[in-house]
Amino acid sequence: MLTRALGISSCLRRIATPNTIRRTIMTTNLQSRFDKLFGSIDALKPAFIERLGKAVEIPAVSGDETLRQQVVKKAHFLVDQLSTLGFTDIQLKHLGKQPPPTSIPDLQLPPVVLSRFGNDPSKKTVLVYGHYDVQPASLEDGWDTEPFKMFVDEKLQLMRGRGTTDDTGPLTGWLNVVQAHKNAGVELPVNLITCFEGMEESGSLGLDELIARESQGYFKGVDAVCISDNYWLGTKKPVLTYGLRGVNYYQTTVEGPAADLHSGIFGGVVAEPLVDLTQILSSLVDSKGKILVEGVDEMVAPLTEKERKLYESIDFSLDDLNAATGSETALYHKKEDILMHRWRYPSLSLHGIEGAFSSSGAKTVIPAKVHGKFSIRTVPDIDSAKLTKLVQDHCNKVFAKLGSPNRCSTELVHDGNYWVSDPHNASFTAAAKATKDVYGVEPDFTREGGSIPITLTFQDQLKCNVLLLPMGRGDDGAHSINEKLDISNFIGGMKVMSAYLHYYAESKEN
Amino acid sequence: MLTRALGISSCLRRIATPNTIRRTIMTTNLQSRFDKLFGSIDALKPAFIERLGKAVEIPAVSGDETLRQQVVKKAHFLVDQLSTLGFTDIQLKHLGKQPPPTSIPDLQLPPVVLSRFGNDPSKKTVLVYGHYDVQPASLEDGWDTEPFKMFVDEKLQLMRGRGTTDDTGPLTGWLNVVQAHKNAGVELPVNLITCFEGMEESGSLGLDELIARESQGYFKGVDAVCISDNYWLGTKKPVLTYGLRGVNYYQTTVEGPAADLHSGIFGGVVAEPLVDLTQILSSLVDSKGKILVEGVDEMVAPLTEKERKLYESIDFSLDDLNAATGSETALYHKKEDILMHRWRYPSLSLHGIEGAFSSSGAKTVIPAKVHGKFSIRTVPDIDSAKLTKLVQDHCNKVFAKLGSPNRCSTELVHDGNYWVSDPHNASFTAAAKATKDVYGVEPDFTREGGSIPITLTFQDQLKCNVLLLPMGRGDDGAHSINEKLDISNFIGGMKVMSAYLHYYAESKEN
Repeated sequence: MLTRALGISSCLRRIATPNTIRRTIMTTNLQSRFDKLFGSIDALKPAFIERLGKAVEIPAVSGDETLRQQVVKKAHFLVDQLSTLGFTDIQLKHLGKQPPPTSIPDLQLPPVVLSRFGNDPSKKTVLVYGHYDVQPASLEDGWDTEPFKMFVDEKLQLMRGRGTTDDTGPLTGWLNVVQAHKNAGVELPVNLITCFEGMEESGSLGLDELIARESQGYFKGVDAVCISDNYWLGTKKPVLTYGLRGVNYYQTTVEGPAADLHSGIFGGVVAEPLVDLTQILSSLVDSKGKILVEGVDEMVAPLTEKERKLYESIDFSLDDLNAATGSETALYHKKEDILMHRWRYPSLSLHGIEGAFSSSGAKTVIPAKVHGKFSIRTVPDIDSAKLTKLVQDHCNKVFAKLGSPNRCSTELVHDGNYWVSDPHNASFTAAAKATKDVYGVEPDFTREGGSIPITLTFQDQLKCNVLLLPMGRGDDGAHSINEKLDISNFIGGMKVMSAYLHYYAESKEN
Repeated sequence: MLTRALGISSCLRRIATPNTIRRTIMTTNLQSRFDKLFGSIDALKPAFIERLGKAVEIPAVSGDETLRQQVVKKAHFLVDQLSTLGFTDIQLKHLGKQPPPTSIPDLQLPPVVLSRFGNDPSKKTVLVYGHYDVQPASLEDGWDTEPFKMFVDEKLQLMRGRGTTDDTGPLTGWLNVVQAHKNAGVELPVNLITCFEGMEESGSLGLDELIARESQGYFKGVDAVCISDNYWLGTKKPVLTYGLRGVNYYQTTVEGPAADLHSGIFGGVVAEPLVDLTQILSSLVDSKGKILVEGVDEMVAPLTEKERKLYESIDFSLDDLNAATGSETALYHKKEDILMHRWRYPSLSLHGIEGAFSSSGAKTVIPAKVHGKFSIRTVPDIDSAKLTKLVQDHCNKVFAKLGSPNRCSTELVHDGNYWVSDPHNASFTAAAKATKDVYGVEPDFTREGGSIPITLTFQDQLKCNVLLLPMGRGDDGAHSINEKLDISNFIGGMKVMSAYLHYYAESKEN
């Protein structure tokens, strides 16, 4: 497979015996292919930006049930693109009804888009995963330009729009890599399988089951999985990521009156659900970031000296964090403390309240039913089910103490497991070489505070290594306003993806 | 004035000496006029419902700056209606720019609509006040029908839509009263002045100054002010209202990061503004309704035995409160406790949070800047400025204790004073007679928990009595979803308004 893949001539093959000579030839050969590929990627830049722009225009917000048809529309957009590029066996995998709680009855989950490029049994097979759904966004949140109309800032050389970095940019990156190979006349060194889902921002509902079903079907023979859905730690140095936090998303509902009430008429004589909810939310975490739910800290794996040392060499500082948040709101000032609290300790964030007044101006309402939204980022060895029980017990206990006549319940909206991998396997090694070739530096090996719960599922179900290969930067504003992707990262990222496939094809291990 | 108004013939006048005879004649004469007027109101019912429907269709939400043009549109709608009905001297009084904080720069306040019907110096002059702006409303809040499309429920004999009871229904009621007089061929016994504002739901900004300016101008010679902008206590017995709570509306802002952040990447390493805000909001009031801001309770006038006795006779029970809230969420179970906490004690309500996630579903955002909204209903002898200082000091103190790197400030959005009147003056006495005539029962004399801050301004500036004459019922859902006005209250209310004008015209005092 190796020689064929590298196209070494039969003449050379006969005389080539020492490993050093072979390696030199391989490298030369690779270099020539990389030159063609990288040139092709540079030349296709306008087309790649245009493709991303078209994709960003579809407001595929999976968390907004009223936009579900837009999510489906984006799946069909991808099918068209894949088809045009020569992908085969394109399938829309339907996942059935979205489980409760939903506002729209019989709401269908968006489909997973599967496709192949190449099906050569002598080549390794790489499954690339991406998600085409995005976080909610609206101009009123404070965006400088329409979030669903991609703005190319020529001066700053970046593309702004919802999904540019999370995850439409990287996802279309894989399509572009195939196009670049074709244009450059370079054969793809592996079989590629795409697995693009539309529910990642809402807990990847239904995907676990699909992966289990297809592990011996569509995904049979996959050697490695590559996920490009995270970011560099800072803004300058590329990273490869070998660990992720999980996330458990909760919703605490307090309800009382049958409908919203006038605070003049009823203020002082009814128990206000929002008052109760505020008491509960304020009991979950303090302003120093300490989780107040009893029993959570006890589940966290203790820090070893070996692990602590890993953090010492990473290129990061308080300034990087402050630059990314645009503020001086850090809870920790030492590099190691910041990184550990981002990667290896759990955190609890309050996201907001549904059902209360949320506009500008003043409304004198007593909301009748309010939902407090919060999530806990999980790390080894937190057990999701046990955590949920602790959270529910905590909320119930705090509510009981209030002595309120309202009703209160806490439910898990979705959960996704944490993941930690070996950063020295074949896939990571190939990606490290590719990164060095493109960016001229060795990547930092990092973990992530964010969650891509499906990582663990791929690893367990397909019994193969999973690589996290970030494209964007730490200041891209994923999930925030003015989400962007630098053009240099878009182009550089696709070069790394391409080179990774070639290095991985070469490696002797899987 | 009395005889002329009653149209007693010169013959009768000469022979009528004993007071009892005169009263009988007056009553007979009034009865005949009331028969005509009430018949006219019944006959015009379809036209009156149609007028209200047209007015409700305009989404005149004063609290939503983006709808300001709709508020202005509704003012012009009223001008057209007044003009058609023969009102004269119709003026749109502009109030200038809305003071900060506003999102839209140079936002103009909606105009006040002034007009007259009659200008006979031998008649008393009654100023009727109403507001044409409404609270926010949208179908997604849970309305059964479009809030800005009035739905006439023939089965329940009610009209549903934003503003039906608060305050578009009562406001158009005054127009209808004039139309009913004209159709019945009954002369209006007083000069009527209308003062319709478009900013009541947002603190009546600019109106205080207008009333002061016009006290010796447009409003010169006003004998009494009648405001129909509140509700019966329950659903069966009419009331007249001699007291109101005031309201101070506050907004606490906590801001930190420059933009919203991803809770995976930043959760646990930045101080979250929403966590800080939740700590502050939870420190303001407890689940039993007790205000925790130090010094507020001390400003409340002590309860006297005489005052306590007033509450004993009022027709009200816990069941009424539960019926109005559609729940069993009452903080007090004894009638007197409920009414006192609604009318003569302050209350603090939490309304919501601007800037945080507020939709259905799940969004893993750390909001960068959040505004907590709450208000305090004020009573004698709470001083507004002193209260604001207590609230700001409290919030600052709680925030300082958190040791957060975020920034926090608390501002008064608007305030309006409480008001208490003498329920035995000429205006109240006339209204009591009118109510008895229409509904067959003596009204209860009540206070209100809600705020109509302008009441006090009218009383002070025009040096005259102010009467609060409610049209709707306690379960109308003002400020809530499915706001409605029963047709019987609409019709009955207009009959009371009409009869009130005649009784008041007759009375010897102002």
